[in-house]
Amino acid sequence: MTMQTVSLNRSYGGTQGVYKHASRATGTDMTFSVYVPPHQDGARLPVVWYLSGLTCTHANVTEKGEFRAACAELGLIFIAPDTSPRGADVPGDANNAYDFGLGAGFYVDATQEPYARNYRMWSYVTEELPQLVADQFPIDSGRQSILGHSMGGHGALTIALRHPDRYRAASAFAPIVAPSQVPWGIKALGGYLGDDKAVWRKHDAVALIEDGARFPELLVDQGDADNFLAEQLRPELLQNACAKAGIPLTLRHQPGYDHSYYFISTFMADHLRWHAARLKG
Amino acid sequence: MTMQTVSLNRSYGGTQGVYKHASRATGTDMTFSVYVPPHQDGARLPVVWYLSGLTCTHANVTEKGEFRAACAELGLIFIAPDTSPRGADVPGDANNAYDFGLGAGFYVDATQEPYARNYRMWSYVTEELPQLVADQFPIDSGRQSILGHSMGGHGALTIALRHPDRYRAASAFAPIVAPSQVPWGIKALGGYLGDDKAVWRKHDAVALIEDGARFPELLVDQGDADNFLAEQLRPELLQNACAKAGIPLTLRHQPGYDHSYYFISTFMADHLRWHAARLKG
Repeated sequence: MTMQTVSLNRSYGGTQGVYKHASRATGTDMTFSVYVPPHQDGARLPVVWYLSGLTCTHANVTEKGEFRAACAELGLIFIAPDTSPRGADVPGDANNAYDFGLGAGFYVDATQEPYARNYRMWSYVTEELPQLVADQFPIDSGRQSILGHSMGGHGALTIALRHPDRYRAASAFAPIVAPSQVPWGIKALGGYLGDDKAVWRKHDAVALIEDGARFPELLVDQGDADNFLAEQLRPELLQNACAKAGIPLTLRHQPGYDHSYYFISTFMADHLRWHAARLKG
Repeated sequence: MTMQTVSLNRSYGGTQGVYKHASRATGTDMTFSVYVPPHQDGARLPVVWYLSGLTCTHANVTEKGEFRAACAELGLIFIAPDTSPRGADVPGDANNAYDFGLGAGFYVDATQEPYARNYRMWSYVTEELPQLVADQFPIDSGRQSILGHSMGGHGALTIALRHPDRYRAASAFAPIVAPSQVPWGIKALGGYLGDDKAVWRKHDAVALIEDGARFPELLVDQGDADNFLAEQLRPELLQNACAKAGIPLTLRHQPGYDHSYYFISTFMADHLRWHAARLKG
């Protein structure tokens, strides 16, 4: 597999790169960013996957996420994929809405037309991109973890719950925890996966837990001034599911914080320390 | 004086605000950002002024500067003005170049037409905006410092050298130190101030030092992979001037770093600690 370097910038003693490659999964070019912290020659480093929210590309967290200081200190590689396929031939939302189609892949493999051909973000993020980066960067594939924001929090939680042996830690900022029960998720899962709600359950963190999926522990930060809290995010649904399933969930309500990168960046280092502690050795 | 709140976001326990006001100095609306760290009611806090480089607005450093963690820890207010007047009636570069006019005010009061009416960034940054924010934020006006990047480094150095009693610290990332001697500066100072190079000397850090201006000490970080280093920045000119004048200059050549916010953000906390140490008490 080959990839093309879009940009390289020295940062906190390491290298922030942006790369592009022709994706088999999506049938499009895909862009992603990788921060490699300072490290000794020949070292293999743990990797943290960050999945972004609606409307984002790799660039939002890369520019605004404030993760590099902590990654440099903790020796973590940080990878940020895009949130959907993109390109002139990729169908988007019929009304160009922000919450479906471009920038809104929801980390599923679509089965519905016209999306099934390109919208295969589940395969892209869980299979194709991990293989590509394992070839190209000094990654210790035995030490991976995952986190995300909003739609990307949904992605991180569902991917972790379905791959508990691959990811040693999982956390989220303001995640969509039960897409089957909220407007963003109902639109997206219906549009990509069709009307059979039984199929949706594999892409719904709360439903996965209800159906028996387990993860050692989860960390979630949620701003209490987040405009999407009551209608779209509903962290209490995750809290209830984790309580019933016996999954230790650290759910922190952060007073005054909204849904923006000002919130994410504030708690990014906390999350990375939590991940690093679980990626040791 | 009144101002309008554009946005407020909780961040690192404080508040990142963006504000707009009708500027007398520029005859336009001007936008700026202010981060106020967590503090006790009634406290007056030291303030750090950050001047941005070519093409930037307040938003670049506000989103990418990674200053809030350190400002929250150190109790610093951080203010980022725009880099020029803007608006439908504001004349820009004749060829829409990035290095003159909009986004390129160079922190001078223009005397040449058609720029003299609006391009009064010196007065704006040194007089009007300090008065406005002193009314609106919990600022200890006796404890101010200034830093900047590239064109904004030029602004920070020249403003500090001409107001050594107002600013207790001054530093810069990759500053234009001698605009009279480099293409960016020759174009800008000529366009705004006219052909009399004697007038330029008040807006040229190296010339100011040669002409007797002094500051207790200066800190400059410069990436050695900065594309503008040899032609536009030339930190050795500042080094020579400071050496002759007996101004202690800490000039750090940072290996592998370029001219971007990936460079600035890496060393932002260092600079803020340096400022905080000089803003104590």
